[in-house]
Amino acid sequence: MSDHIPEELRGLLDRPIIAALATIMPDGHPQVTPVWCSYDGTHVIINTTADRLKHRNIVARPRVTLMVVDPDDQFRYLEIRGAVEEITAEGGGESMDELSLLYTGQHKRYGIEAPPREESERLVYKIKPVRVSFNPLTRNTGGKTR
Amino acid sequence: MSDHIPEELRGLLDRPIIAALATIMPDGHPQVTPVWCSYDGTHVIINTTADRLKHRNIVARPRVTLMVVDPDDQFRYLEIRGAVEEITAEGGGESMDELSLLYTGQHKRYGIEAPPREESERLVYKIKPVRVSFNPLTRNTGGKTR
Repeated sequence: MSDHIPEELRGLLDRPIIAALATIMPDGHPQVTPVWCSYDGTHVIINTTADRLKHRNIVARPRVTLMVVDPDDQFRYLEIRGAVEEITAEGGGESMDELSLLYTGQHKRYGIEAPPREESERLVYKIKPVRVSFNPLTRNTGGKTR
Repeated sequence: MSDHIPEELRGLLDRPIIAALATIMPDGHPQVTPVWCSYDGTHVIINTTADRLKHRNIVARPRVTLMVVDPDDQFRYLEIRGAVEEITAEGGGESMDELSLLYTGQHKRYGIEAPPREESERLVYKIKPVRVSFNPLTRNTGGKTR
């Protein structure tokens, strides 16, 4: 039980692995959506726009959780419960471009034809880990547990 | 906005795709863990044991959310907010075995050396979808959106 991301699992946040982001709806139900993310050593960074449900949930209830699973080993995962400490438009476009390059190999946003809402201003969300969980069986393996 | 799983996305629940399951902690923070799941046409089925955190959260707060992303198309996903309508030990072992076969190709539980807690009784959780979301761009595509 720690807010520390084990060094040997940190790589899961550097690879283009789609994360599951959970927020809380006004009625208390969890909401989960796929997101791109990165990690700067202090915060997990995500990027979205203010017209999304997840944005409204985060503003009202900034406790969120991200979970990534190693696509090469389904038993190797990282769950990060965190607090959104900052939401900023500063560097939002550049951050989205970096994530797009990592996840799609393309600079253009999403790598697909952008629907109209994609023209909304990109915002950066900085999530401070408060509780990190993982499968203890996989902590000390570089990859496969089997 | 519907509780209906679109026919063209239902296949995401028949394939061995690791789902993200979100529950709610006592303090209101989301908890997200990877799970195996299947769909019987009415309920999404998951399987775990009573000694897990997710079990305690579900018993106390039965509103959960599952999210699956197509590993062949990161923009194709299904989010199912649901209510756990039943938790039963009946068929728990058989259900786990079926999931293990689907997800690992092996009958033995998890396909890995089972830690001691794996000897706990397997329980089946039946989740009734109450709200289904997906990327509307991918609804009518069999696969790739790009």
